[in-house]
Amino acid sequence: MKQHLVSMNDLCTDEIMDILNLAKSFANGDHWSPNEKTFVANLFFEPSTRTKTSFEVAERKLGLDIVPFESGSSSLLKGESLYDTVKTLESIGIDVAVIRHEQDHYYDELIHKVNLKIINGGDGCGQHPTQSLLDLYTIKEEFGSFEGLKVAIVGDLQHSRVAKSNRDALTALGAEVVFSGPSEWFIDSEADTKCNFNIDEVVETVDVLMLLRIQHERHFSLTAISADQYHQKFGLTEERERRMKKSSIIMHPAPVNRNVEIADSLVECERSRIFKQMENGVYVRMAVLRKLLEQ
Amino acid sequence: MKQHLVSMNDLCTDEIMDILNLAKSFANGDHWSPNEKTFVANLFFEPSTRTKTSFEVAERKLGLDIVPFESGSSSLLKGESLYDTVKTLESIGIDVAVIRHEQDHYYDELIHKVNLKIINGGDGCGQHPTQSLLDLYTIKEEFGSFEGLKVAIVGDLQHSRVAKSNRDALTALGAEVVFSGPSEWFIDSEADTKCNFNIDEVVETVDVLMLLRIQHERHFSLTAISADQYHQKFGLTEERERRMKKSSIIMHPAPVNRNVEIADSLVECERSRIFKQMENGVYVRMAVLRKLLEQ
Amino acid sequence: MKQHLVSMNDLCTDEIMDILNLAKSFANGDHWSPNEKTFVANLFFEPSTRTKTSFEVAERKLGLDIVPFESGSSSLLKGESLYDTVKTLESIGIDVAVIRHEQDHYYDELIHKVNLKIINGGDGCGQHPTQSLLDLYTIKEEFGSFEGLKVAIVGDLQHSRVAKSNRDALTALGAEVVFSGPSEWFIDSEADTKCNFNIDEVVETVDVLMLLRIQHERHFSLTAISADQYHQKFGLTEERERRMKKSSIIMHPAPVNRNVEIADSLVECERSRIFKQMENGVYVRMAVLRKLLEQ
Repeated sequence: MKQHLVSMNDLCTDEIMDILNLAKSFANGDHWSPNEKTFVANLFFEPSTRTKTSFEVAERKLGLDIVPFESGSSSLLKGESLYDTVKTLESIGIDVAVIRHEQDHYYDELIHKVNLKIINGGDGCGQHPTQSLLDLYTIKEEFGSFEGLKVAIVGDLQHSRVAKSNRDALTALGAEVVFSGPSEWFIDSEADTKCNFNIDEVVETVDVLMLLRIQHERHFSLTAISADQYHQKFGLTEERERRMKKSSIIMHPAPVNRNVEIADSLVECERSRIFKQMENGVYVRMAVLRKLLEQ
Repeated sequence: MKQHLVSMNDLCTDEIMDILNLAKSFANGDHWSPNEKTFVANLFFEPSTRTKTSFEVAERKLGLDIVPFESGSSSLLKGESLYDTVKTLESIGIDVAVIRHEQDHYYDELIHKVNLKIINGGDGCGQHPTQSLLDLYTIKEEFGSFEGLKVAIVGDLQHSRVAKSNRDALTALGAEVVFSGPSEWFIDSEADTKCNFNIDEVVETVDVLMLLRIQHERHFSLTAISADQYHQKFGLTEERERRMKKSSIIMHPAPVNRNVEIADSLVECERSRIFKQMENGVYVRMAVLRKLLEQ
Repeated sequence: MKQHLVSMNDLCTDEIMDILNLAKSFANGDHWSPNEKTFVANLFFEPSTRTKTSFEVAERKLGLDIVPFESGSSSLLKGESLYDTVKTLESIGIDVAVIRHEQDHYYDELIHKVNLKIINGGDGCGQHPTQSLLDLYTIKEEFGSFEGLKVAIVGDLQHSRVAKSNRDALTALGAEVVFSGPSEWFIDSEADTKCNFNIDEVVETVDVLMLLRIQHERHFSLTAISADQYHQKFGLTEERERRMKKSSIIMHPAPVNRNVEIADSLVECERSRIFKQMENGVYVRMAVLRKLLEQ
């Protein structure tokens, strides 16, 4: 493992599988704590319930000492830079900083200059590696392996922090990945041509239907199409769900826009793993923290 | 005990007495902790010092793991509902959620659909059961029992979260309850007629003078009457306090509007139990948490 | 030691040395915890990263229980006074309150009326005793003693919380202190005349160059002079740093305005102790907390 985990590109396939196996052991009740008092700070510059709370629980389960940090009452208000803030935390004794920040690649100015360990909890429209890992973990738990699985990633591919890294990782692990959704939200034109599928075809053939959140909060405007039109054209309606294979599952990083990406009635349906993903996130984050701290 | 404590109506008289006795044992220094690591989150959507801090101390004394939650930096900003937020916390491993919310009966959409335990820390102008319980505890500590006590509840009955439930509980436990204050703030006309007393009569006869806070922050406007006029007409002035019985006590849920509900000089007078109530709140909340967790 | 530490004037020279020695033992890895569960709350009414995080780490290293307090979601929003807030925390069981507040001498209304212990984390343009102590500790660690040292305090003396108390303490401990900076920011005219030195002279003779932050956030406007002009006229430029004595050090309480008080390239230069000061702050705060709790 590298010193930091800021992108799925930091991990080779073996390291990914290693983290998933370690997460499994934590899910089975294994305990691990560092030998020395270890301080962690969670710096969230964007709203978060799932990721922040999940890290907070994972950290407590590992017996780490968590030092609260609120950007809105920090010296960032006095104009202090992110670099000086992180360097300050390091000087005061923080060992790990989990950071979510609205700026793409915020970590570029940090990773070669700080001694503490950084876990990226989401950067702009960039990466969100622990979300990718919990997605992979959820699929592996369900199907045992990735070989031969067909996974569709559906929706706002362009603004997603996981669409591209999930595609890359799943492909490397032996799955076939297709995309679906509005073509103006696709990642790049080459992939589009190859992977663009209609949701009506996709639902009948995939093992995993991975819906993406429409990122209203990223100033994305749905002018061309209403929420209801999106649901009818690209979303998972009750009718489409009925046509899914018996064993196939539904995933979504949440928060869900009910009746947009997915019908309200399906959020907690039998094949939905949406809340299971959140549970799995804790084990995956425990695994990542342990890997970084054991170096 | 039910799964949740959202209203005093969730408790029968025996359960109330049981909680008060358990609170007493905690006040005497008894210790108790759950056998398993237990996670709690305090979701306060309205300002709070007393209730939130009191729960935080009670939880720490019981050895619970507290996961911070700030509504202002949560995914509620992305439009996530309270239900999805609580369900998320449950999925991540939270066992108990203490919730204060501005909406009356916010818990109706939660209580039959979540597996974690909810303690209502105040809903709109609805209920605030741990405040009621600490009021009862404070009275019991003072007088040994409720039989034959005369209690006056004074002030903004309509917007109070405890006036009605305290009346019901105290009456069931054998006390006599009367109301006093501006008639337009009374709860219902029948009770008004029966229980409306002038503050000048009331102070001379009651054992407990329970003042209520004027809820400025609930957009209540005092247009018809100034703060000073309220104090002279309905408040506890120094002159009125001198006419109270030797053994009678003053209570107030706080924060106090000094020189409105009560003269500034009386807030910490000998018969005031206002800060004692806050101390007692910790023991009562320890008792409630233990009862819910031991189920 | 007094009950509270609100000002450096609360400490005699012996007590200062005692705290510095205790801090040294913590830096060397000594452990100490109170015998009883001890609750502390950090009340920061002004932005802070360093001081708040430093106290949070120090408190955790001492095994204290920290109860979170956010002024922006407290009952201060309902008009509750600072006194009633602190008295509430005391009633609920808080043993120590660390307070930063924008009002000079906010503590005057508290110190004789509360039973918990108060540590001043900064009041307006008043005092910030733990910052002074960490400054002293950093100098002592560097030079062994204060006798015969020459220390220059440079910059916005008037709005600084440490300029005056550092001058007084350093002088009492045997050091010589001079000031430098814009004359309109000097503390009082007598001291000005005696101690006003040009930065170009100062850099060549001092052992310690203690730069002060320009307090933009205190509504101080630099109308008469731009940031760049300040840097050229009063700041530590690369050219000036080259003329410093070999063994002399640079200090700054931070956050640094890079290229204003000090050239960007010098913030982490070999003779800079700016991040070392932050590390030292943890040990000094552990020492202060222990001294207050052991009384």
